[in-house]
Formats: sequence, C-alpha cells, structure tokens
Amino acid sequence: MFDITLAHNKTKGADMINRLQGKNPFFSCVIGVTETAKISGISAAGENPEITDYTPPADVELLQLGKCKCIPGVPITPDGIPTPALITMSALDLASIPTLAVNAGLRIKPHVPFVDVGGSPGNDIRTGKALKNAKEVMTRAQILGENLSKTVDYLVVGESIPGGTTTALSVLLAMGVDAKGKVSSSMPLNPHELKTKTAEAALKAAGVKFGEFIESPIKAVSTVGDPMQPAAAGLILGAAKNVPVILAGGTQMAAVLAVVTALNPDVLENVAIGTTRWIIQDETADLTGLVSQIADIPVLAADLDFTKTTLDGLKAYEQGVVKEGVGCGGASIAAILKSNGKITKDVLLQEIEINYKVLVS
Amino acid sequence: MFDITLAHNKTKGADMINRLQGKNPFFSCVIGVTETAKISGISAAGENPEITDYTPPADVELLQLGKCKCIPGVPITPDGIPTPALITMSALDLASIPTLAVNAGLRIKPHVPFVDVGGSPGNDIRTGKALKNAKEVMTRAQILGENLSKTVDYLVVGESIPGGTTTALSVLLAMGVDAKGKVSSSMPLNPHELKTKTAEAALKAAGVKFGEFIESPIKAVSTVGDPMQPAAAGLILGAAKNVPVILAGGTQMAAVLAVVTALNPDVLENVAIGTTRWIIQDETADLTGLVSQIADIPVLAADLDFTKTTLDGLKAYEQGVVKEGVGCGGASIAAILKSNGKITKDVLLQEIEINYKVLVS
Repeated sequence: MFDITLAHNKTKGADMINRLQGKNPFFSCVIGVTETAKISGISAAGENPEITDYTPPADVELLQLGKCKCIPGVPITPDGIPTPALITMSALDLASIPTLAVNAGLRIKPHVPFVDVGGSPGNDIRTGKALKNAKEVMTRAQILGENLSKTVDYLVVGESIPGGTTTALSVLLAMGVDAKGKVSSSMPLNPHELKTKTAEAALKAAGVKFGEFIESPIKAVSTVGDPMQPAAAGLILGAAKNVPVILAGGTQMAAVLAVVTALNPDVLENVAIGTTRWIIQDETADLTGLVSQIADIPVLAADLDFTKTTLDGLKAYEQGVVKEGVGCGGASIAAILKSNGKITKDVLLQEIEINYKVLVS
Repeated sequence: MFDITLAHNKTKGADMINRLQGKNPFFSCVIGVTETAKISGISAAGENPEITDYTPPADVELLQLGKCKCIPGVPITPDGIPTPALITMSALDLASIPTLAVNAGLRIKPHVPFVDVGGSPGNDIRTGKALKNAKEVMTRAQILGENLSKTVDYLVVGESIPGGTTTALSVLLAMGVDAKGKVSSSMPLNPHELKTKTAEAALKAAGVKFGEFIESPIKAVSTVGDPMQPAAAGLILGAAKNVPVILAGGTQMAAVLAVVTALNPDVLENVAIGTTRWIIQDETADLTGLVSQIADIPVLAADLDFTKTTLDGLKAYEQGVVKEGVGCGGASIAAILKSNGKITKDVLLQEIEINYKVLVS
C-alpha cells in the first residue's frame, strides 16, 4: 500500500504503520563529531577526514535553509557523492514536517537553531576514553524528549555523525552484541577489517571485554562510543514513554537501541527502526541481525528507488554508496505516512532530483 | 468564567480566549543577559548586579528540573523575594505544558537543554552598540518559530533578562513610542529617573533621535536593545504566521511587539499579550498605554491573587515586588485555558505555595 517495506518483525511493523498513518511527526537530527572519524579510511562522510567536522552542521543547515552555510555546496563523499541530507530535506519539505537539530558534540556550530544538551566532540575511541559527560548529555536529551512528546504525535530521531558505524561496532561489542562484520558503511567496499581493528583497540584501551558492559550502557558509550549515542538514547527514552519514536538510521541506531534497551525496555513498545531499502539489501552488513539480538522491535525500510535517475550522484546510491544517514530513511517513511501514501517513492525521487540539480550541479 | 482579565481590547481578547481554550500550548522562555543590568539600581532580578548573569539560566533550570543547578536555592531580589519562575513552574507542571528555553545571549549556560540561536550577551546600552548580530539571531529564532508552529496548537513566549525594562524603554523611544515613565519595574519603587537617564544616554551614544528607528527595528535593538528582543521577535514572527502566540510578559514585551509590528503587521491577528494582574494594576507603569500606541492587539491578565497567602515571599507580590517575569502571567493563562478553567487562581496559589515551601524555606 505504501512504499515502505516491513523488513523485520512484520506484525509489529504493520501495527506501527497503522499507528503513525496520517499523524503529525517531528524530525530531530542528533549531530556530533569525533576524532575516531578522522582515522584514515573510516568515514566517507566528507571529502577528507578533516572536513568531517563540517559535515553534521552542514547537513542540518541543508534541512533548515535548503542550502549549507558553513561549507560551500553540500557535503560529499571522497568520490563526490552528495549527502543523504538531500533526501531528508526533500522528504521533510514535501510533507511539511518540522525539524530541530540537537548538538550532541560539535566543533563547528551550524548557522541554524539547534538544541544544546551539553555535549562535546568525541575522542578517538582507541584512547578508551571516548566521552566526558555521557550521563549528563543523556539526562538533558531525555528532558528534551519528554517535552517534545507532549506536543508531537510521534518523534523521528535521525543522526549525522561521521565514523558512526565504527563507534556503533565498539559499543555493540562492549554490550555483548555479535556485531563484527555486521555494521554498514557509506563506502561501497565496507572496510570491516579496519573497523574491527579500531573497535578492538578501543576495547583493549578501555580494558573492556566483549559483553562486559551489557548492563552498563553509560560506561559503554563513555569508553568506546560517540556523543550521538547518549543524546539520541536520551531523546528516545524521554519521548517513547509517551509517543511512538522512529530511530531513523542504519546500524548506528542498533547501538542506540542497545543503550535504550538496557536502560528502559518498557519503552520498546513505542520504538521502531526506520531505514532505507539500501541498508536492508546491503550484503556487507546485517542490520536486522543486529536488531534481533537486541530487542523485539520492527524495522521499516523506505523503498527508495534511484534506479531510474539519470543523475550520477544519485545513481551511486544504487551501487552501494552512502545508503543511509541524516535520518533519510525515517524521514521518507514519515513523509509517506503523513501524506497517507500520496508521497510515493517516485514523488520523492522527483523532489530529490530537483534539489540535486539546484544544489549539486 | 476563567481567572483571566480582559485588560485591553476586550473583544479581541475574548476571541483569543475562545481560540485557545482546551488547546495544547508550548511554552518557550527566551533568556539572555546584558551589561546594562549591572548598572547599579537598574535590576532586581538577582541578589546583586553581578549575579544577574545567573538568574536567567537558573530560572529555566527551575522550569525543567524543579530546582536550580547553577546557583543554590532560587533567584531572589535584593530583598529576598523569590523569582516569578516559581509561578511559571507551578503553572506548567499543573497543566503538563511542555517547555524549551531559547538562549538569546548568556554568560552562564543552564544545566538543561536549550536552543542556541547564535546570540551573545548584550553590551551596556550606554555604548550605543548593544548587540552584534541581532538580525542573524532573529532569523534563526524565526526558523525555530516556524518549525514549532507546525506541531503546537499555540506558542507562549516568555522571557528572563535582567534589566529588560530599561532596554525596552530605550528601544521603544528609538521606535517612537512615548514610553518614559511607563515601563514596569520588579522593584516596588520604580526607578524611572535612572531608567530614563540610562535610555537617553544610550540614544545619545548611538546618535539616535526619538522615533528615528520606527521602521528600523533591527537597528533599534542593535544599538539600544537587548538580546532577548530579536530572539523573541523572531520566534513570534516565525510562529504567528501559522498559530496564535501569547507574548508572556510585562512592558518588556511592548518592545518586542514594536519590533514584530514594524517587520510584519500581518501576523498581529495571531498575537496577544499575556501578563499578570499585578502589571495591569501597577500605577508606576502603563502596559496597556504602551500597547495601544503600537498595535491593535488584546492584553490578557492572569488574575493571580496572593492576598490570602501566609508566605512572606509571595505576599510581597501583592505589595508591588517582582510582578511579572519568566512568562509567569502567560504560563498561568495557558494553564487555566488548557484545563478549561479547572485550574483556578486558588489551585495555582496552592501549587505555588507547595513549591515555595520546598524551594525557598
């Protein structure tokens, strides 16, 4: 009926779609940066490692202004493929979905309003000391989530944090999830070996064994995580007590889900993951395999389809580049459901192509 | 019917009450600080001038946490009278009204989530160079207001900025409003002479004549205003295009109204001022006289009544101390209307007394 695939836990997924259909969503994008992202070869969320500090603020500028201010053009991969924020922006605009960025830890501030939850940029996880004040960040984000839940029908929580699948991997390992070789990458050749080596170095530096922090999510993110994780988890914990929440992302959201599940499994009835078809079809990763180890929640996938486009930077998405980010899957799902299906994958592609031509060419 | 007085423009006021009754409000509190507040004798929003930097963050901590974190106890006047945030907090809690602080320019950050709109603390207006980037702050706040208006029934905009009636006076004079001797004070003896002297020194330093900036509100706030003004005005301009907005405050909101009116009078149909009975009855000031010079909008007043209390710090409100602040009048109106009148002035006082006993004694 809708251009949304029930990718995992189909009964619960169909139920969630029924609950959200025609309702009024709010899209929050949790942004942060880390030194982990600057390890050579880890992240493609920027033309080069140093510029990853600019990618998250540029992404939320794109959502709010329709253009970036802190960089010229839009964020691109080293191969020149544009940010998935193009998709998110198109979906939010089409369905008139309100949005607000949450700064979980940035070096460069966006030129748009953002919520400060007291976070700082993350250290290189290979120090074993990733975050300073994860608990405080989570507590403040939780207050934000509680307040938003009193006024929105449901919340969509996206993220933009370069290197986030590597910090997801290390947190998942610390929390006892068999995640090696299962996290996605924005690159077509998923550098699993480098990610695993980095995550293992992080665990070793922190003196943490596989699964040792299964009941200590704050310790997991504080030692080997990234600032997006406690901020997103807090937001979800605060909001999902009252309203449904879509965790909009790929395997990075599996780490957030692990944190939420360890702290308050009661909210999971209100939680689903919303991602893209490209993540589900990614043979180099296994999102549903990760989710099924953590919690009994559904995974929905926006059936985004760029096979018919003539634009090279979008075609690349069908060749396994980027795949997800800036909550583009969840935002697309929210746009489809808010419009009761009037927004289809074809309508989305048309809008994305228009924005691409203005912003990228 | 409700414990709300139609204090000015009664027909429009009654119409606004009809529109808001039973609806779901969102309370935002715009906070900032200035060097103007540190002029001896200008502000009672803190035990001494230097501590005024802590009052606004402490106020919003109180709203979100039920206690302050950046200071011990709660903000008090030099005479020990507690902050009106006690009233705001009680009203928001009783009616389960969501809230979010907006940082328009602070030295001390609150230990709760807040929206950053790129502002900085205000200079002493006697320099004639009050604000650096008022236009950018207003633009960002407007984006926030637009986004919130897509999810809330209506917005209540409060403020906490020490010294704000003096910066309101100077902006009103620059914009051609006869405001001398008409702005309120949190002190029982309104220091009009000092305020007028300060405002006139500001206008002189900026080389601005009375009314010279009637069509240049950005210049007015940039030269002789405070950071709350462009942030609140932006929020209102963004939201009131789509939903009703209550400007929650006393004569400080007259300056904000002047800015909004100069920039987009079309939104005024959605605008009302919401304040307290104490402001309306203040014989040392004239809010409705100011409003009637600016725009044809209603003024509503929460009929707060502390005559029966036995608590000294609350009794003082009936003797002309504090009177308004942190949007306490507008928050009370929103609580009364959300509850369809179940929340009365007596219910409010009872809750305020409970919170007073926990926090002040």
